[in-house]
Parts: sequence; C-alpha cells; structure tokens
Amino acid sequence: MQHPENNKAYKGLAVNEGVENLPQVNPYASFHRQKRTLTAEQYVEGILKGDITLLGQAVTLVESQLPSDQVIAQQVIEKCLPYSGKSIRVGITGVPGAGKSSFIESLGTELCQQGKHLAVLAIDPSSERTKGSILGDKTRMNELSVQANAFIRPSPSAGSLGGVARKTRETIVLCEAAGFDTILIETVGVGQSETAAHSMVDFFLLLQVTGTGDELQGIKRGIMEMADGIAINKCDGNNIERAQAARVSFKNALALFPPTESGWKPYAETCSAVEKTGIMEVWQMVEKYIAFTHENGYFDHKRTQQAKYWMYETVNAHLLNSFYQNPEMEAMSKLMEQKVLNNEISSFIAASELINAYNHKQ
Amino acid sequence: MQHPENNKAYKGLAVNEGVENLPQVNPYASFHRQKRTLTAEQYVEGILKGDITLLGQAVTLVESQLPSDQVIAQQVIEKCLPYSGKSIRVGITGVPGAGKSSFIESLGTELCQQGKHLAVLAIDPSSERTKGSILGDKTRMNELSVQANAFIRPSPSAGSLGGVARKTRETIVLCEAAGFDTILIETVGVGQSETAAHSMVDFFLLLQVTGTGDELQGIKRGIMEMADGIAINKCDGNNIERAQAARVSFKNALALFPPTESGWKPYAETCSAVEKTGIMEVWQMVEKYIAFTHENGYFDHKRTQQAKYWMYETVNAHLLNSFYQNPEMEAMSKLMEQKVLNNEISSFIAASELINAYNHKQ
Repeated sequence: MQHPENNKAYKGLAVNEGVENLPQVNPYASFHRQKRTLTAEQYVEGILKGDITLLGQAVTLVESQLPSDQVIAQQVIEKCLPYSGKSIRVGITGVPGAGKSSFIESLGTELCQQGKHLAVLAIDPSSERTKGSILGDKTRMNELSVQANAFIRPSPSAGSLGGVARKTRETIVLCEAAGFDTILIETVGVGQSETAAHSMVDFFLLLQVTGTGDELQGIKRGIMEMADGIAINKCDGNNIERAQAARVSFKNALALFPPTESGWKPYAETCSAVEKTGIMEVWQMVEKYIAFTHENGYFDHKRTQQAKYWMYETVNAHLLNSFYQNPEMEAMSKLMEQKVLNNEISSFIAASELINAYNHKQ
Repeated sequence: MQHPENNKAYKGLAVNEGVENLPQVNPYASFHRQKRTLTAEQYVEGILKGDITLLGQAVTLVESQLPSDQVIAQQVIEKCLPYSGKSIRVGITGVPGAGKSSFIESLGTELCQQGKHLAVLAIDPSSERTKGSILGDKTRMNELSVQANAFIRPSPSAGSLGGVARKTRETIVLCEAAGFDTILIETVGVGQSETAAHSMVDFFLLLQVTGTGDELQGIKRGIMEMADGIAINKCDGNNIERAQAARVSFKNALALFPPTESGWKPYAETCSAVEKTGIMEVWQMVEKYIAFTHENGYFDHKRTQQAKYWMYETVNAHLLNSFYQNPEMEAMSKLMEQKVLNNEISSFIAASELINAYNHKQ
C-alpha cells in the first residue's frame, strides 16, 4: 500500500493552519469560500495528492465538535488509513524555558532541508485556557513555517486531554496519508499529555536544560522515566561546561533506571537550538533507536499495541463521558465528592450511590 | 472521633488470615463454626475492640465476590469509617530480590516492639496466577507473624488490578478502625500496582539493591519518580561499599528529578534487613516526611485527594466493567481488536462500532 508521493503539491503552498484564507492557486480553490461542502472523497483525493490546504481543512473537521463534521472526518480518516503508518513519530517534551519551540524550529528546518516532509503537531489540553501557549505563537517558528515541506498545526484546543489527544492521533493519520514522513508532537510537561503522546509516538524525547530546582518546575515527575532519550539544550556560550556536566549526570541517572521495554538504552546528548549545534546528533539518537527497534521487532510491536490502546481508550472515554456529561450525574458527582471530602461518607458508598442512580436512569 | 483503644484484645491472638480456624478464647468463638452469620454491627463491635479474628473475617467478606457478603462488607466499612484515618500508611515496592519480605519483617518487628500496631497488606494482581507470591509464603515472616501487634494479610487474589486495589483500600479502613496505627502495603513492581498503592498511601518507599542491569529487571519504569524515598538494602558484608556508592548515585539521580508535589525532597538511605542495620533510619525518613507534610498541610490535602480519587475510580471501574464484562461486548471487542491489529479498520472506527453496538443493546 505505497501511498502516492506527490511532492509537487507541496510547492508554493503556505504551511500553517491559517492557510485556508490565503489567496493561492489550487484546484480546490473554488471550494474555499464554501467550507465543509467537500465530500470525504474529495478531501481524501486532495490529501493523497499532498494538498496542504485540504489537509488543513480536514484537520479542522477532525477537531470540530459538530456531529456533521465528525461524520465526514471519520470517513476521511478511514479512507486515509491504508496510506498511513509510514512516518517516524517523535514526541518532544520539556520544562518551560527548555527551548522546545526553538529546538523544533532548528531541528525541523534542518530536516526539511534534507528533504524530509515534516508535520509538527501538539497536545496541550490547556491551550483553550492559555489561548494556545504551545505552537500558538508562530512568530517563534518563522524559519520553519516558511519551509515548503513543513506543516505546523497548534494543539486542538477543545475538550478534555483525552479528546485533544485523540484528535492529534487522528491528525497523524491524515498527515501521513498526505506524505509527511516525519511527525513531531510537542507536549507541555503536565504528565497526562506525555502519557497520551507516549501512546502515539515511536520515540519520546525529553528536552532538558542545565541545573536543577527552579529549572525543573513545571514538568511532572515520571516523565524522565518515559523518555527514550534526553537532549540537554542551551549548550552554548558560558553554559557549555555546565551542559556537558549535566549530560554526565543524566547519563548516570539513566543507568539507574530499570530497562526499557524495547531493550533500548536511553542516553543524553547536548545541543544548542540557538547556535544550531548538536541538533542532528540528537536526531541521530532517534534514527539509531528506530533502526534498533526495527531490528528487534519492537517498532511494529509498539505500533500495534498503540492501535489497540487507542481503540480501548476511545471506548473507555465514551463510557465515562456518557456518565459525567450527563447533567444530573455531574451534579450528583459534585455533591458526593463534597460528602467524601467532608468524611461524611466513604468513597465506595458514594460511588455505589452514583452508580445506582445512573443505572436507575437508564 | 477517637477510636476505642483496646490493646488487651491483641493479646494472645494469632495474627494472620488463617486465624479463623485456630482454637482460641474469644467472645465471638461460637460464631466461628457458622461463618457469615454475624451482623455488620457484630463485626464492627469486634473490630472496634481490636478483635483480630473478626477483623480477619471482615476482610474475607470485603474480598468475597458474593453479593450477600458485599452487602455486609460495605455496611461494616461504612460503620468503621468514622474510626479510620488515624494511621500512617506506607507503600513499599522494589525489584524482585531486593528483599522486600525480609525488610518488612525487620522493620515490622522493630515497630511492633516499639508498641506500634502494624498491619501489613499487599497489592499483587498476579497473586491468583502465582498462587500468592507476595506475603503468601508466611514462613518468610516468622518473626513478624508471631508479634501480638501485627496483622499480616496477603493480597486479595481475585479479579483485576483495580478490584484488588479497591479491596486493599477498603481493608485499610477496617485495620485502622481496629486500632492499627501503621499500615505497610507491599507491591510487586509491575507499575499498575504502584500507581494504585500510591493512591492510598502517605509515603511511597522504593527498596533497591546495588548494581544496575539485571538487578533492575522486573520493575517498571516510572516507579522511581513515584518514590518519596529510596532504601538500598543488603548493605552488609562485602556489599557495604557498593551499597554506599549506590546511595550517592541515587542521591544524585533524585536531585535531577522535578520537585515533588509535596515539596519534600526524596533521599536515599542504606540498610541491611538481614543484619537489621539502618532499618530505623529508613523509618525516620518516613517520620520526617510525615512531620514535613503535616507542617505544610500536604498530608491532609493528599488524603482528601485520595478519597476523591477512589470515589471516581470506583465509578469508572463500574462503568467500564458494565461494558467489558458483558459477554457480547467482550466477544465483539476481541473481534474489533483483531481487525485493528490487522490494520483492517482504524482504532477510532472500531471504537465507534463497539459503542454503537453497546448503545443499541441498552
């Protein structure tokens, strides 16, 4: 099921999610003023040709809350599925201030110049509140966003972490069908986003900076042990020695961790996103990992486990949402929660009263 | 709501879950031959008097799958609730071979001799398969099991991790109502058990041994970052230097982790369970943590968060079980999973077919 490579389609197109409203030469241009009048087949045809405008619109449908949009979105995803799966998917997280955006900008620009087709996505369940803190400020990715081979898409902003992550997972399928061979997924270090990203990427990279304490605020414990590799950024100027010392510290710490499921031994590299040094050494770490896990079969194993995970995760989210999005159950949950917090009732009795009330309704 | 201290009740009673069948002098002895004929009130009365025989029987009801047993069990838990919460709850995990049993034996014996009332519980979802690997072999706890102040109970063996953990959580309530002021909960390093234990303990201790690699097999990544403290066991004989070096390594690694939610800085101690050295230094770490978190309010905060967690966790488990324990949905899930694994259908379409089928049934 080789998907049709169509590199010409990338040329001359702007590369971010606002692109729908830009004037451009495009066979589907006539549809642009009448959004959502395309059929699933038309979206798929455009996506398979590598039409980034239509890809962007299809992702908008994926992110839409409208049931009518979701019907088309699911059809598009289903038809794109046979053409997906051929990319390398890398999760990138790090403490605020570690320089995630400039790292992705440096790495992405380099990869694009090497001829890779790069999609940059994000999972940030807080993006609604913070108005898209992550990838939202595209001025920070000036250089990358003008690359013809790049597609940058901020985090879907609506809904729960689970919902946001599921939309990102679906967007990967569309991007891969559109010919993107490298997918970077940025997360924000809150813990849940990383767990979600971990369930959809091949390699999980933790971006660190030197020092401890304050620099580590803002990232949740547990993420370090999730990482397949660590990049210590800001190894530049008078910070070089400290960064190199940090690399040794992380190397020693990583050696104390239990082995990974893949058998891969995570290690640390230094780099400077600003000076563009060490960036490709970090990427070589990813490539070594991919080669290693292709060799021992873990790559495919993980991919199938992930597909299974997302099926059950989606079912589970639906089952829980049916309960918690029911206004009566939501109100009763809050009430019971308060009684539990006041120690008036046990967690278990509270739960069984909620369950009885729910069963009675159905 | 001070619970009635009744230390006399501990005296002369054997202390493990097999106790029901031993001959002994006990006001409730006449009930022993007619199991499950006690009322909830009678169990509660016995538990509040510190009657370990009745406590053991009540825990058996908690662990029972019989609906009639569960009705009484829930009544007993509810009535014990006002008398619970006064203990220190400590989770203990570690790699196989780290010496968890001998550590708990040494620590527990010491605590009992200091006058503490100690309950040792376990969460081991694999115990059904492995016939109770954890705490099951009570010959390993000879010294502790003859302490009059100790109550040792193997992991409930039936059901899913969630079910096993919930029963352990409920057992804590009964133990506290029976006057146990120190609860140790042993887990097996598989990851999920630790997450569950973490949601019911005040302090989470990771037991390590020196060296890396093979010694770390059998414990899941992520557990180290969950720990409030590390004890490096087997610091004895010609292993002392290596154990002390390991303490420094772990100290350095811990310093690289993001800060804990509590503000507490986890650290590492060495000990030898066999030679009974350093054990109380490890326990002082627990006591320091308890004092620190009482001071900054995190102790109570965590307890209320945990109570809330268990309410929602129990509701969620019920919602998911209603689906997956339905034979039709179980069969269809397996079928859909296979289609997903064969890449015949997307995770999301598979999920929505499952959901539609389920909604149609209801």
